[in-house]
Amino acid sequence: MVNVYDQANALETALRESEEFQQMKDLYSKVNEDAESKQLFDEFRELQMTLQQKQMQGEELLEEDIQKAQNSAQEIENDENIKGLMEAEQKMSQLIQDLNRVIMKPIEELYEINNQ
Amino acid sequence: MVNVYDQANALETALRESEEFQQMKDLYSKVNEDAESKQLFDEFRELQMTLQQKQMQGEELLEEDIQKAQNSAQEIENDENIKGLMEAEQKMSQLIQDLNRVIMKPIEELYEINNQ
Repeated sequence: MVNVYDQANALETALRESEEFQQMKDLYSKVNEDAESKQLFDEFRELQMTLQQKQMQGEELLEEDIQKAQNSAQEIENDENIKGLMEAEQKMSQLIQDLNRVIMKPIEELYEINNQ
Repeated sequence: MVNVYDQANALETALRESEEFQQMKDLYSKVNEDAESKQLFDEFRELQMTLQQKQMQGEELLEEDIQKAQNSAQEIENDENIKGLMEAEQKMSQLIQDLNRVIMKPIEELYEINNQ
């Protein structure tokens, strides 16, 4: 019987060597090596976290918060480095979802059969 | 370069052949083949879903709901078939978490390096 952990490690290696991951890695470096991009990106992430926390605590977002978020999104959109990175992140997230769908097939099948 | 989808399929096969999955499958069959266990299990699942929906809609749980949930959990606990299945489900869920941790390592490393 093949060991599941060996197979998970093999998938981890394949993911690490994949074009999607390598591209994301390169674009991360680009953003981090460009002072302006890095600052914009850090600010964007921080703002996102702050707003998410507010929402999770049930606080209402102020007009000011929404304006800030829109401005930040616009600045990000204009920065080629960050724009590229975010596109790469989205591709990676799609890939991860697809892989998960493959891996979880046996369990899904089991539930379906028994729910009929 | 190794294809990630090939590796995901290999992991899917290994998971399907794993002791953890085979055991869960056997115990599912046992529950489904025993009329009493099946009824108890279906009622338990349905009650869980109803209560979850209530909570998600912000409705408060009534004393009666909580009593029902406790009774149902007690009945489940006394049914050897269901008890076995739930233990197997928990083991499978732990395994899936462990596998995910392995697979997501490259991405986690990337984020960590860039957040230092």
